[in-house]
Amino acid sequence: MQQPLIGIIMGSDSDLPTMQGAIAICEEFGIAHEVAIVSAHRTPDRMVTYAQQAHHRGLKVIIAGAGGAAHLPGMVAALTPLPVIGVPVSSRYLQGIDSLYSMVQMPAGIPVATVAIGNAQNAGLLAVRILATYQPELLKRVQDYQQSLSDMVLQKQACLET
Amino acid sequence: MQQPLIGIIMGSDSDLPTMQGAIAICEEFGIAHEVAIVSAHRTPDRMVTYAQQAHHRGLKVIIAGAGGAAHLPGMVAALTPLPVIGVPVSSRYLQGIDSLYSMVQMPAGIPVATVAIGNAQNAGLLAVRILATYQPELLKRVQDYQQSLSDMVLQKQACLET
Amino acid sequence: MQQPLIGIIMGSDSDLPTMQGAIAICEEFGIAHEVAIVSAHRTPDRMVTYAQQAHHRGLKVIIAGAGGAAHLPGMVAALTPLPVIGVPVSSRYLQGIDSLYSMVQMPAGIPVATVAIGNAQNAGLLAVRILATYQPELLKRVQDYQQSLSDMVLQKQACLET
Amino acid sequence: MQQPLIGIIMGSDSDLPTMQGAIAICEEFGIAHEVAIVSAHRTPDRMVTYAQQAHHRGLKVIIAGAGGAAHLPGMVAALTPLPVIGVPVSSRYLQGIDSLYSMVQMPAGIPVATVAIGNAQNAGLLAVRILATYQPELLKRVQDYQQSLSDMVLQKQACLET
Amino acid sequence: MQQPLIGIIMGSDSDLPTMQGAIAICEEFGIAHEVAIVSAHRTPDRMVTYAQQAHHRGLKVIIAGAGGAAHLPGMVAALTPLPVIGVPVSSRYLQGIDSLYSMVQMPAGIPVATVAIGNAQNAGLLAVRILATYQPELLKRVQDYQQSLSDMVLQKQACLET
Amino acid sequence: MQQPLIGIIMGSDSDLPTMQGAIAICEEFGIAHEVAIVSAHRTPDRMVTYAQQAHHRGLKVIIAGAGGAAHLPGMVAALTPLPVIGVPVSSRYLQGIDSLYSMVQMPAGIPVATVAIGNAQNAGLLAVRILATYQPELLKRVQDYQQSLSDMVLQKQACLET
Amino acid sequence: MQQPLIGIIMGSDSDLPTMQGAIAICEEFGIAHEVAIVSAHRTPDRMVTYAQQAHHRGLKVIIAGAGGAAHLPGMVAALTPLPVIGVPVSSRYLQGIDSLYSMVQMPAGIPVATVAIGNAQNAGLLAVRILATYQPELLKRVQDYQQSLSDMVLQKQACLET
Amino acid sequence: MQQPLIGIIMGSDSDLPTMQGAIAICEEFGIAHEVAIVSAHRTPDRMVTYAQQAHHRGLKVIIAGAGGAAHLPGMVAALTPLPVIGVPVSSRYLQGIDSLYSMVQMPAGIPVATVAIGNAQNAGLLAVRILATYQPELLKRVQDYQQSLSDMVLQKQACLET
Repeated sequence: MQQPLIGIIMGSDSDLPTMQGAIAICEEFGIAHEVAIVSAHRTPDRMVTYAQQAHHRGLKVIIAGAGGAAHLPGMVAALTPLPVIGVPVSSRYLQGIDSLYSMVQMPAGIPVATVAIGNAQNAGLLAVRILATYQPELLKRVQDYQQSLSDMVLQKQACLET
Repeated sequence: MQQPLIGIIMGSDSDLPTMQGAIAICEEFGIAHEVAIVSAHRTPDRMVTYAQQAHHRGLKVIIAGAGGAAHLPGMVAALTPLPVIGVPVSSRYLQGIDSLYSMVQMPAGIPVATVAIGNAQNAGLLAVRILATYQPELLKRVQDYQQSLSDMVLQKQACLET
Repeated sequence: MQQPLIGIIMGSDSDLPTMQGAIAICEEFGIAHEVAIVSAHRTPDRMVTYAQQAHHRGLKVIIAGAGGAAHLPGMVAALTPLPVIGVPVSSRYLQGIDSLYSMVQMPAGIPVATVAIGNAQNAGLLAVRILATYQPELLKRVQDYQQSLSDMVLQKQACLET
Repeated sequence: MQQPLIGIIMGSDSDLPTMQGAIAICEEFGIAHEVAIVSAHRTPDRMVTYAQQAHHRGLKVIIAGAGGAAHLPGMVAALTPLPVIGVPVSSRYLQGIDSLYSMVQMPAGIPVATVAIGNAQNAGLLAVRILATYQPELLKRVQDYQQSLSDMVLQKQACLET
Repeated sequence: MQQPLIGIIMGSDSDLPTMQGAIAICEEFGIAHEVAIVSAHRTPDRMVTYAQQAHHRGLKVIIAGAGGAAHLPGMVAALTPLPVIGVPVSSRYLQGIDSLYSMVQMPAGIPVATVAIGNAQNAGLLAVRILATYQPELLKRVQDYQQSLSDMVLQKQACLET
Repeated sequence: MQQPLIGIIMGSDSDLPTMQGAIAICEEFGIAHEVAIVSAHRTPDRMVTYAQQAHHRGLKVIIAGAGGAAHLPGMVAALTPLPVIGVPVSSRYLQGIDSLYSMVQMPAGIPVATVAIGNAQNAGLLAVRILATYQPELLKRVQDYQQSLSDMVLQKQACLET
Repeated sequence: MQQPLIGIIMGSDSDLPTMQGAIAICEEFGIAHEVAIVSAHRTPDRMVTYAQQAHHRGLKVIIAGAGGAAHLPGMVAALTPLPVIGVPVSSRYLQGIDSLYSMVQMPAGIPVATVAIGNAQNAGLLAVRILATYQPELLKRVQDYQQSLSDMVLQKQACLET
Repeated sequence: MQQPLIGIIMGSDSDLPTMQGAIAICEEFGIAHEVAIVSAHRTPDRMVTYAQQAHHRGLKVIIAGAGGAAHLPGMVAALTPLPVIGVPVSSRYLQGIDSLYSMVQMPAGIPVATVAIGNAQNAGLLAVRILATYQPELLKRVQDYQQSLSDMVLQKQACLET
């Protein structure tokens, strides 16, 4: 088994359906990754250990999803030097606005790279772009992916016209 | 010096002017307290230690103020069995809405007793009410305080009429 | 029958499904409690009496749930010296934002310990933490509860891996 | 001195500058009125008495201004059969959104006639329209007032053109 | 047939289910009323005529419901000296926030008595309170209605206890 | 004097500083225009007349600015077949969110072309683009204007580099 | 086939159900139009070409619908001198508030004529009004359309009365 | 002069004071960078060229700041395979909420790594973390930076105690 480069973590297994989008991108790009439930509030010690050891274990990027008062990405970002991507998971009453604000409004010093509410696919793609920074081949595959999005639009346009 | 019963912590010394409201209430009621800067993001280890040792050190209630993606009260509540009161400190652009959501919308299992944006005075009064639960004399003083609020209104009414 | 220590009140019986979360916690921790419908708007006299007598009847904490222009927790907090915990019940159109603001934004002098929208379970847990302040055994059980949350995450992690 | 017909109350003397708009309208229309500081949270007993006796004392309409978790108009409306007009006073951090929601989102059964944030002048005018319902002469003066607003616009138009 | 005292108007027949709450109150209190579809945007002339003639036809209060950019209550209030009550009808995407702001935030000079989103029942009750201002018997019936709300709570409390 | 093609109206002369942006664009493009204070709420008759006669008087586009419960653009759009552009003027407490919602959320059938809060300059430019639809020379000048915006950026870039 | 005058574009075929409202209006008024999927993010080159060539191809107005971080109308407006109408398509979590802000809040210099969330019918009607500016016959048909809206209300009123 | 690795772009020179936070971090970490004004709306061609050539010119990360309907980061992300970091610049009326939504709510396929409103310093730090992914020495310096944040808190704590 390959050493995982991307760690995909979430506060609760109820976040897993949302986070599948990130897993699917890792699989599509063939990037070794790991998936774990790490709750800032229910397993604070586990979270500290996970975050502090991540770069020692060879992880390059951490994707963290959480909902409501979503502290996981920010706390992990405080404990690791790696780039941390936050996925605001939609919440029951506030539709993820609380999750978004709890992630994106980090104080100066500790960045969280926040993507759209519920959009773990983009978190995966951002992680791939980060890994591609020094891997020209992977960068090429990001461009191919962008081309495939464009092709899909043109196909739909063709459908529309017939 | 008396053993502090209330720990008043904040993420940054820029939160201190806001948090003075809580300190003033402790002083007014003569409750031993301590004040500390404990940042969830900049001093995560210090925060873990502070929260885990709080009840061993004799603290009964923790008041935590923070702004923006305000993780301090929720993380401390995850690490201590004591009641934790959160004070959302007003933020530069979102006026504290982000601070409020980051605190009050905690997931099931880890409560934070949240008060109004910027209202550390009420955090102090809530801590006093908690301490008063089993101290009839202190409960009496809470009632006296409520009476004094009423008296102040009546004085202002008198001013209005003259 | 034991003397109730926690009073769980709500503005309407339609709030009961939400407030069950608080009742369940009281039962889980074996804390004597009472449940009552006390409407600030439809039974103002009853509310005044309830709030003014609560501490004479031996109650230590009041949990109040209400929705929309939710005045119950704030009014009760004005009439009792006990700590009052507010549960913003989700409203039909504004999803509980109105309930939250009506509770948490109390003026200086009268604190309401507000928890997340619809999260009566956390209100119950907060009440237990308050009672535990001077009961070492109960404090220990709060810690056991926190440990059980952690264990549940680890079990889910195990499921994920198999 | 004439029997007051309109009671103008507010939670705090800091609301007085806002509430002057209602007082000015009463004076302009020559309607007997009274002004009082009645806090739902700091003087709950006084509020109950005020509200329950209002119609016995000859008041016809109550105008209540408050800010933040603004419970005054709703609680007074629960305790009196008179029409109650609510003025959401702007709050420090949420600009009166909290005051507005705490007033306007009243549950079925207890109406509060809410006007714009900070717009006590309209509260006064609404009270005058209510009094005018059965007073043809006053109704005529409401129409004159509306005409004067129109005349003012035409004067400003004239200024613009010169 | 009795001369209607309350005019209940709405921008569209799709608002009728919401506005039934006001009709039901008129029926319950036996107040003569009329129901009409009057759209500010689709029938501006009809709206002008309706509003300008209302007090000549003997109407005492107008209740106007509308959704989205809800101009009906404000425009009617500009054209009549009668008190106008606005009911913000919930909208498809913004849940009635747009309806609420379009009604309640009227400029100085033209008041709209706004009630909660979708709460036409309260609009009806407010109209009754306005009519009761100079009708002691009706005022008594408003109090009876308030008492019946209280009785209903006590019955539900009794159910809870058995 | 040329026949005005663009009518720039506003609810109050306090909106004039904001609306200058539209006037300046008309002057810059040399488009004949007129400026008037037309209040939906204070001069409803004047507004009806203005809107109904606009196209008879040769106006091609109407720009309407208003704040708060901003009914002017929507009401004018209901009364004219011409395109109506709405400028949400910033309001005191809600920063123009109320103005924006009151304009943009028009019901099906009656469009208002809404621009950014306080951005009357864009309203002017939109009116010019509308007039340019059948005037190739004016269309060319719109392109020149766009080029000038681009040139300005390049000049600023040059400043940055030196 | 007639030369299209109105270009109706959208970021994704999932926007098509919403955009049908604009297509239906074009058909009802018999205005030649074209429909295309043009994504700012997935086909940026296609978007640039579409926008730059639109007026050369004889288009007079562009209607662009998009959701979330909706950049299509603004980018097209930056690249064409034609009037561009934006339709904020409702988004999954934020109900189209994000789409609305991304469209309406354009910087000075580049206007987007924004209509209500999801209201492509009004975008179509606005385009027709723009085309009618110099076509008296079409202007007459806009008035007929407005009359038909009025007639429909009167029919519903008749139904209500029987 | 070193080949820039980080491109810092902004829609207008008025965004420069905000974006200084990113420049300062690049300087502090000694990372070669470039600063440019690239407006999506005023210089769309320049933006396309900048974005498409960025990775050919050796840039590794792009930081893009913009306000209001902020399309720059999203459009650049659509045109480059590099990771793009978005800084929502505070806007005049909506305090940057519009900027935030226009950036963070990107559709699936095109990620923008969004940081807090106005927090360009964190954008710089995120870019450094991205560059550090494959540079152990730089990763070490990120950790030193985190340590320095911690030291600063402890110093402030020391000040507090004396």
